[in-house]
Amino acid sequence: MKRLSGSLADIAAVLHREQLALAQDNLAVEAQVRDIIETVKQRGDAALRDYAVQFDKVSVTELEISQVQIDQAFAEVDAEVLAALEAAKINIESYHRQQIETGFEDSPSAGVIRGQLVRPIQRVGVYVPGGTAAYPSSVLMNVIPAKLAGVKEIIMITPPQTHYVPAILVAARLAGVDRIYQVGGAHGIAALAYGTETLPKVDKITGPGNIYVATAKKQVYGLVGIDMIAGPSEIGVIADETANPRYVAADLLSQAEHDALARAILVTNSSQLADAVQLEIEKQLSSLPRQTIARQAITDYGSIIVTETKAEMFELMNQIAPEHLEIAMDQAYAYLDQVENAGSIFLGHYTSEPIGDYFAGTNHVLPTTATSRFSSALGVYDFVKRIQYTQYDSAALKVAAPAITTLAYAEGLAGHARAIEVRGETD
Amino acid sequence: MKRLSGSLADIAAVLHREQLALAQDNLAVEAQVRDIIETVKQRGDAALRDYAVQFDKVSVTELEISQVQIDQAFAEVDAEVLAALEAAKINIESYHRQQIETGFEDSPSAGVIRGQLVRPIQRVGVYVPGGTAAYPSSVLMNVIPAKLAGVKEIIMITPPQTHYVPAILVAARLAGVDRIYQVGGAHGIAALAYGTETLPKVDKITGPGNIYVATAKKQVYGLVGIDMIAGPSEIGVIADETANPRYVAADLLSQAEHDALARAILVTNSSQLADAVQLEIEKQLSSLPRQTIARQAITDYGSIIVTETKAEMFELMNQIAPEHLEIAMDQAYAYLDQVENAGSIFLGHYTSEPIGDYFAGTNHVLPTTATSRFSSALGVYDFVKRIQYTQYDSAALKVAAPAITTLAYAEGLAGHARAIEVRGETD
Repeated sequence: MKRLSGSLADIAAVLHREQLALAQDNLAVEAQVRDIIETVKQRGDAALRDYAVQFDKVSVTELEISQVQIDQAFAEVDAEVLAALEAAKINIESYHRQQIETGFEDSPSAGVIRGQLVRPIQRVGVYVPGGTAAYPSSVLMNVIPAKLAGVKEIIMITPPQTHYVPAILVAARLAGVDRIYQVGGAHGIAALAYGTETLPKVDKITGPGNIYVATAKKQVYGLVGIDMIAGPSEIGVIADETANPRYVAADLLSQAEHDALARAILVTNSSQLADAVQLEIEKQLSSLPRQTIARQAITDYGSIIVTETKAEMFELMNQIAPEHLEIAMDQAYAYLDQVENAGSIFLGHYTSEPIGDYFAGTNHVLPTTATSRFSSALGVYDFVKRIQYTQYDSAALKVAAPAITTLAYAEGLAGHARAIEVRGETD
Repeated sequence: MKRLSGSLADIAAVLHREQLALAQDNLAVEAQVRDIIETVKQRGDAALRDYAVQFDKVSVTELEISQVQIDQAFAEVDAEVLAALEAAKINIESYHRQQIETGFEDSPSAGVIRGQLVRPIQRVGVYVPGGTAAYPSSVLMNVIPAKLAGVKEIIMITPPQTHYVPAILVAARLAGVDRIYQVGGAHGIAALAYGTETLPKVDKITGPGNIYVATAKKQVYGLVGIDMIAGPSEIGVIADETANPRYVAADLLSQAEHDALARAILVTNSSQLADAVQLEIEKQLSSLPRQTIARQAITDYGSIIVTETKAEMFELMNQIAPEHLEIAMDQAYAYLDQVENAGSIFLGHYTSEPIGDYFAGTNHVLPTTATSRFSSALGVYDFVKRIQYTQYDSAALKVAAPAITTLAYAEGLAGHARAIEVRGETD
């Protein structure tokens, strides 16, 4: 891991440049994805079948995965995995249930009613990657908040395989997915956005994917809603002298093993801890199955910063705005109010970040590459719309009319003023 | 206005194609905007000054608009306009205050704490168009929710002019804008996203603009947050035989006068009303100052649909998912629960849509071109982040460990399991 030093501003700038580089557009991929989307719009299911052969090397006859296949997955799935998924589901539901919103209504003056309805999005599509990135935990994290929001129909798509990871299909049924289609890649996203003969078009698309999937989501954004453009995973650890270097190293590596582009950043006011963590990382790396990926990530995107004060630890980390933030300090809870930007916070020496990936019930779909400055974990709020409503009676309109017509004329919109005035004329 | 007939599905398909056409990407503009953004990244303030000359025909020395200029605007502004803006501000504040969220916390089992913090976005940029599209009401609508959310710094940008509409600067100060810069167009968006020597980079950008502004917002989305990609304005009116055709026609025209691409759609179960509205539109058009624009919009994007039943009116309108929805019926409030998709609803015969544009306090920044299927009016919720937090003590981790490591190994992420296991080893 590299040691960064200098002013907080300099360090923040270095880390910000790293983030910008990870967020670069790829024009070649953009053009390719544009073609794929156009082809799916024109040729529908036939295009999906052709792309399955071209990209997934699988010949697909039935696009929908049958209930029989899902039953089969339940027969095949490991009993402990099933039990763990069921336990995780309970926690995810109880956490997210607290996000359910109700509307409001007030009457600020006589004859006036104003309010806000909260309505579920009607149909949602969830993308689930194939191969080694097929995570049943992510199926639960994407689907359960949608279900709690009241989404009427949840469609899942996943790249066609000769044999599915059973836990994926099991998690889909546990979470409440209505239909599953074996369609992947940018063409899958296009199918969800525009619909085909078989796939119904959806109102919003969520779920992670490779650069083709992410680029396709960005291109269809506006026509449908999307959750976010997820970048590589990140962890920031704030630790003082009370932290255990073995724990800190293990947690940094748990993110680093995701991806050679994953970022792991330690900010500490203790140079002893910094040294100890560095040694531990080397030691633990050597026995890690995904050692090659994790080592690459730690070398390219691992950073250790030693600050003078505890306040500086938080100041710098708020600029980094990490996806996952661990506070490895005694009395960590007391530092919560110093956090401005983070996706999800893990408090104290025992709250290892994977607790949140799998079990605690908080969501693991989180804003990456500093987007926690302006966005949030996936939640029930991502699957609802707030609809405003207003009612003025005739008398209330008379009271308000002069202000409305004054502003309408001031903005040069006489038609707006006329719509108010015409109602006065009849009385 | 064209009369559409046929099955609901056919009518919805025609209207959906219209919407898709309005949402088309423009590749030439995209390339141009990409160049502009790159130039601002490289050349900063110098690029902003060059573009001001090129696009706005104004030579700008000071990029920031001074407090003296704003004082001057207060001296110049029409007293009635000022009073109307102040009255609108009170209503916008009282409505949006109801959207302020607090976090939550629970303890689902011994030794476990979970919760959600609500934090304001730290710095927000608001784009305000120049020329005839400079609307002081929009300044209030964008800034007040941000202020109520607790945003620390609100930056406004607007194209340079030789003389500003005083109400724009007045509205900015009333709403609580911290600094105003005279920078417009795609280059202004680039400056907000990347920062320059003078302009600080922001975390989120909101506000309407022309196709260059909208395209730039789409391109910087991900690096910063954005509110939405707004399309042309729309109104959908559901009316039965109790509706007054003069009112309905005036309201349809109030949207049509915005833009030659604006859409105005009447759905009614009364063919008498349909005929009467059509006559009224022609009559009222002839005396409208913005007649040319409104006529073009009505001709190209005005539609009247007569349904058999009241239920069909709502079914079709939910598929259209209009930005503004009027329910021009007696007892309109009772039909609220039949609305699935709309940005803002106006109930009864006296709630003309411009009430919401200027005065009622609901937001007028609304999802257009059917995006109300998955998104909402601008609100306080757009200016906060929800941050999750979790704390497990040592005993609670022991209880949870088997489920977590089971899922981690099942997903092939041994490093995740190790982070849990290493904590068991020390005890």
